[in-house]
Amino acid sequence: MAKKAKTAITPIRSENYPEWYQQVIRAADLAELSPVRGCMVIKPWGYSIWENMQRVLDKMFKDTGHKNAYFPLFIPMSFMEKEAQHVEGFAKECAVVTHHRLEMGSDGKLKPAGPLEEPLVVRPTSETIIGEMFAKWVQSYRDLPLLINQWANVVRWELRTRMFLRTTEFLWQEGHTAHSTAEEALEETRLMLDVYADFAENYMAMPVIKGEKTESERFPGAERTYCIEAMMQDRKALQAGTSHFLGQNFAKASGITFLDQNGKESFAWTTSWGVSTRLIGALIMSHSDDNGLVLPPRLAPSHVVILPVIHDESLKDQIVAYCQSLAEELKSFAYYGRAIEVEVDLREGRGGQKMWEWIKKGVPVRVEIGKRELEEQTVFVGRRDKEHRDRQTLSRKEFVETLANTLDEIQQTIFERARKFREQHMASIDAKQDFYDFFTPQNKETPEIHGGFVLAHWNGSAEVEEIIKNDLAVTIRCIPFTEEAEEGKCIITGERSKQRVVFAKAY
Amino acid sequence: MAKKAKTAITPIRSENYPEWYQQVIRAADLAELSPVRGCMVIKPWGYSIWENMQRVLDKMFKDTGHKNAYFPLFIPMSFMEKEAQHVEGFAKECAVVTHHRLEMGSDGKLKPAGPLEEPLVVRPTSETIIGEMFAKWVQSYRDLPLLINQWANVVRWELRTRMFLRTTEFLWQEGHTAHSTAEEALEETRLMLDVYADFAENYMAMPVIKGEKTESERFPGAERTYCIEAMMQDRKALQAGTSHFLGQNFAKASGITFLDQNGKESFAWTTSWGVSTRLIGALIMSHSDDNGLVLPPRLAPSHVVILPVIHDESLKDQIVAYCQSLAEELKSFAYYGRAIEVEVDLREGRGGQKMWEWIKKGVPVRVEIGKRELEEQTVFVGRRDKEHRDRQTLSRKEFVETLANTLDEIQQTIFERARKFREQHMASIDAKQDFYDFFTPQNKETPEIHGGFVLAHWNGSAEVEEIIKNDLAVTIRCIPFTEEAEEGKCIITGERSKQRVVFAKAY
Repeated sequence: MAKKAKTAITPIRSENYPEWYQQVIRAADLAELSPVRGCMVIKPWGYSIWENMQRVLDKMFKDTGHKNAYFPLFIPMSFMEKEAQHVEGFAKECAVVTHHRLEMGSDGKLKPAGPLEEPLVVRPTSETIIGEMFAKWVQSYRDLPLLINQWANVVRWELRTRMFLRTTEFLWQEGHTAHSTAEEALEETRLMLDVYADFAENYMAMPVIKGEKTESERFPGAERTYCIEAMMQDRKALQAGTSHFLGQNFAKASGITFLDQNGKESFAWTTSWGVSTRLIGALIMSHSDDNGLVLPPRLAPSHVVILPVIHDESLKDQIVAYCQSLAEELKSFAYYGRAIEVEVDLREGRGGQKMWEWIKKGVPVRVEIGKRELEEQTVFVGRRDKEHRDRQTLSRKEFVETLANTLDEIQQTIFERARKFREQHMASIDAKQDFYDFFTPQNKETPEIHGGFVLAHWNGSAEVEEIIKNDLAVTIRCIPFTEEAEEGKCIITGERSKQRVVFAKAY
Repeated sequence: MAKKAKTAITPIRSENYPEWYQQVIRAADLAELSPVRGCMVIKPWGYSIWENMQRVLDKMFKDTGHKNAYFPLFIPMSFMEKEAQHVEGFAKECAVVTHHRLEMGSDGKLKPAGPLEEPLVVRPTSETIIGEMFAKWVQSYRDLPLLINQWANVVRWELRTRMFLRTTEFLWQEGHTAHSTAEEALEETRLMLDVYADFAENYMAMPVIKGEKTESERFPGAERTYCIEAMMQDRKALQAGTSHFLGQNFAKASGITFLDQNGKESFAWTTSWGVSTRLIGALIMSHSDDNGLVLPPRLAPSHVVILPVIHDESLKDQIVAYCQSLAEELKSFAYYGRAIEVEVDLREGRGGQKMWEWIKKGVPVRVEIGKRELEEQTVFVGRRDKEHRDRQTLSRKEFVETLANTLDEIQQTIFERARKFREQHMASIDAKQDFYDFFTPQNKETPEIHGGFVLAHWNGSAEVEEIIKNDLAVTIRCIPFTEEAEEGKCIITGERSKQRVVFAKAY
């Protein structure tokens, strides 16, 4: 066995992937568990990633004609009943408000008091309450399309939670739109999926497969659910965003009708689409390594960290001044619509330890400034996409002038790395035994890391999905959008299939 | 009686001020009531004002060293008990989650199911849950100060609600900080009050008085509460922001301790401070007139609306093109850190009606473009701070070049108008009878509009506050920060007083 290299994260991915994930979050100080079951606290470094995601997505939504609004946190319980599949999908995970006061009991303990006439559900999603408002706002075809987005917190009472990936409360955006025709609503559903894919690939540096969910994986109440699916480093799939064509189901449940150009009353066609703080989990698992978080520059809270290296106290002031003037110079440049963000780390403490903190936090570019850099007007630069020892000296001028380019290189490098990883672990399989072998751990030391994405044929039945789910815990992640559908035979039944679908284990 | 001028809002302020307020909100399409008791829906035009407020405040918070984070929506009921005054202040208005599922009953109706072991309170404010986390994060003096802000929704079960001013759920930010000394925490408390005052005056164009609350009006659990108070057009006071010095109360309740430089363990000193969507109510009531909303340019969702005026269909394309090129040109300029935002109103419909919609929505600058403007390369400009008939023709070039200046003029004009209004309705009063007369409606036709701010002496006792509150529904809004405290005699008891305080009726 080769000597193990020292890493900043213990355990490393190949030793215990789920624990590695928790340790990356901890080492980067992104979030931690709260005293409230299943709820986490998002700490400043983690929240700042979310703010950057919000800023980019919000602009994309506005550029495609959507406007933000805000709807109540609470939904009257009776609203949940309006759409039969919807209530079935969410009833098991609803936090319910039943009282509106606390009273001190005779035992000196607080008790809920003031029972509500009708209990209120903390929104798990807002189709029903927003539908109610849309029904008031939409009267005529002139009011359509209605294109609304909401940034909000939602609550789904999950039994098993995991930081960012599945938490009782999470932050998200939910788009809700109403249209006069099915075609236009479908176009919107697809457009917003494209927006999500664009964001995932070009900002998160995370390659995704676009496709449609099978009926069994659809959003409760939707007629079609489109999704983007990404491969994590344990080769599992993570659903990173969904866009739903709701047909007229919710329009009928809420009474969203309009008079068309001929004065005829019709139900509107609606859509909804959302991404959440789960994307931060996806980001972590797409790029991070055994030394911690790796951030795509376009979403990193800070692009550059500058560390003064002071061995001779008499040079301290000059070195710090050099660091600060460099920081100011960098901040005057912009990268992807945002001023370059720079941290100058003036904290006390050992330089090596501080350096490793920034590596674990995933900052794309690290700059060390000591006596030599001061004298020669240079910088000593490390990149998070390279080995931490692989650093180089550049003239200050060259560093500044090429920084935007360097950030772009890092962005491209980690995207390409993730794309190649996915390619390596994606297979077209036609024989059932091969399929079963693919999804069975071969290496007992790393049981969590195995499998990948399989492109295989499927007869279109929920029964086959059920068999595969029971046997292997594998599901159809999506029926990929493809121009070149290739016919074949179902991997289980041998029945005819129109195209390959994507199978994987999933988060 | 003089002939009544036609106004866009009915009733006008002098007829029925509370109803005028609701109608301004409706006419500007800012928000509306939801089916959930006491909760409102913030519509796109209203939400966009909030987004602008958030953007400016967020930058101010970050510029003063604060970082954003996110804490759970739910607070375990037992946490509320930790600070005695705190629970007393909030127990009567807490929404309580007691169940985590819905089940279909035998009567075909949903019922709450899955009772929680410990009920959860929907946060009315987050001192207790954030305190719990701070206790983990703070170990040594090196971890201080800890400067955190959260943008969030909170719920306070109010019996009487009013759009923006008092709603069951509202949006806000809550700053929470911990310090190693009382002095530093007090300095922070004061600094954030200054940030709020700066925002109120220089962005909302709303003059405010800074001061300290009396003990009876303090935040539950605080040692000192600072506030900014503004005068609305019915001369009532509106508390627009508060900043609390919490002493060591919450540090003791949550166990926030640190080792100081000498290795001695001490409790930290904490602060909290917040502003909410209530500010939108303050904005509306500071500037709006009988024709609807008036927006300060620095927070307006759109700075300029351009309306094509087409009488001759053959010129339509040219006029629309002229409008659009003007819009593009304007968008390339910035005003107060934000690109100029322009709406080109190409909707069908009568020009006059469209124009009035924008007046009611409060857009600072309106531009009409017709045949004449097209031919002469001019624009026909109206300003929301002037009479709607008072419009002028400018060359396109001059209009573009002076727009930032025009916006600044509007900003200053409405600030000055509000300042003068406050001056007119603020009096120093020394005789009890005068004080009582001042706060008694003289005009029976407009009972809502009377009084104002009174600077009067007070003996410092809660009893006097109680008398005045019972007799007149008037409270001490604040003990104003002043350099020139003037001694005098209490307006009720004649006892000695160190300085005048501000009395008013309040929202």
